[in-house]
Amino acid sequence: MNVASDIESVQRSVRQARSRGLTIGLVPTMGALHAGHVSLMRAAREETDYVVVSIFVNPTQFGPAEDFDRYPRPLDSDLMTCQENRVDLVFHPDGKIIYPLGFQTFVEVKGLQDVLCGASRPGHFRGVATVVLKLFNIIQPDVAYFGQKDAQQVRIIRRMVGDLNLSVRLAVCPIVREPDGLAISSRNQYLDESQRVNARALFRGLEEVRERVLKGERDAQTIREVLASRIATTPGAELDYAAVVDADTLKPVRELKGEVLVALAVKFGATRLIDNLILTV
Amino acid sequence: MNVASDIESVQRSVRQARSRGLTIGLVPTMGALHAGHVSLMRAAREETDYVVVSIFVNPTQFGPAEDFDRYPRPLDSDLMTCQENRVDLVFHPDGKIIYPLGFQTFVEVKGLQDVLCGASRPGHFRGVATVVLKLFNIIQPDVAYFGQKDAQQVRIIRRMVGDLNLSVRLAVCPIVREPDGLAISSRNQYLDESQRVNARALFRGLEEVRERVLKGERDAQTIREVLASRIATTPGAELDYAAVVDADTLKPVRELKGEVLVALAVKFGATRLIDNLILTV
Repeated sequence: MNVASDIESVQRSVRQARSRGLTIGLVPTMGALHAGHVSLMRAAREETDYVVVSIFVNPTQFGPAEDFDRYPRPLDSDLMTCQENRVDLVFHPDGKIIYPLGFQTFVEVKGLQDVLCGASRPGHFRGVATVVLKLFNIIQPDVAYFGQKDAQQVRIIRRMVGDLNLSVRLAVCPIVREPDGLAISSRNQYLDESQRVNARALFRGLEEVRERVLKGERDAQTIREVLASRIATTPGAELDYAAVVDADTLKPVRELKGEVLVALAVKFGATRLIDNLILTV
Repeated sequence: MNVASDIESVQRSVRQARSRGLTIGLVPTMGALHAGHVSLMRAAREETDYVVVSIFVNPTQFGPAEDFDRYPRPLDSDLMTCQENRVDLVFHPDGKIIYPLGFQTFVEVKGLQDVLCGASRPGHFRGVATVVLKLFNIIQPDVAYFGQKDAQQVRIIRRMVGDLNLSVRLAVCPIVREPDGLAISSRNQYLDESQRVNARALFRGLEEVRERVLKGERDAQTIREVLASRIATTPGAELDYAAVVDADTLKPVRELKGEVLVALAVKFGATRLIDNLILTV
């Protein structure tokens, strides 16, 4: 496994792989690799010939009051995870490589970026879109792998890829969960013991939604209230949003019809967790 | 010469050229081709193997009160110009190909986009950067050709290329002028006879600046005043800006030092003309 921290080395390695006729898979991450990331690496390993994992805690997607500084950076164990999963190349640049002095170009996906998580985290998706575009340009992967847990991110990147005529194909992998249903996230480690137990409420709320819809519920507002009241009765939980939106436009729907995204964000103290469910009605 | 109006055909032709080992040159234009564009085509013809000219009047770079509708679109004569200059491929898409329904991704180069022409034309450079990025992604040229007349556009695109890790090389060609010095522009045809005569004031002002600087003038404000007073005494001319800025940051300078951009924009009725001069002091 190669580990590169500068753009030239990464491009040299990728060019060599490509000149051998290999297809390139990219798994962009912020490190703190967990079972969710591993599922992406495995998909990449299965579907492409040369697997690149980028590890970069991207400052432009954190707000000034967010957890950029304390975001976990367990590099040694991350590299071990990559090695175990037969990754070919890890790209681990520092901030100055990605954002050199004078950097001032940003990509924005209007509309999609300002709702749901974007409403609570202004500038977040601008940072995400910009760094992902840069990684696509640096590595030029055939396929890039993202987790469905970040449903809005996936939607935005898909829009960007289409709008900017990028040639990369996106592969979206299902949410990986703890045995009790909690969606795996690098931020779960911020939770204390009781928060960790109460954090089950997100998945349980989504499971209740799924059952209600199976039984015929089609009213979006009822679904939102199911989620909101579940969170309201969960100790230490504060609802950021409970949304039922069109999966394509991310605009609120009144009635469940077609492909719908049910998503929620909940704060436990300073820790913000998200989870979601795609329903085809 | 091939003429293609859809993305797939363009990409097929470019891919074929590349598979024959040819280098790709791109000249992005809005049509109404003139001697300035021809100089770009010639440079591309000389330096690259397969020359692509795009002709697209880009709606997102026009303000609501600007001349998008009446911008000249002499397609037949443009194609003839391309043919005469041994262009290999003309990409001439319509608006829906470049901006399909639901398009919402934009690139912005903060700071550089809001000064000079950007101050009078809000959103202009966002539209330019976005369409140029799309053309780069569609065509993936080795070299792209731009005219120095649009100095700020060149600066912004250079910044975007660096910031987004694009692999295209930019080639910037000198301003092409009429015998009396007027910088050639598709918009010159909007001028009536007396405006056309008076439009010489831009170049004459810049020539006066060059002489003053040769003779030792280093005060930027004096230079601005030279330009402003020349325009003030020109019948029918209204100064939009007369700027002396750092060629890299586009920020105003007090003293001429290093590489400096002297630029002006002048309105004759509804027609806005620009011209500039790079000085290395």
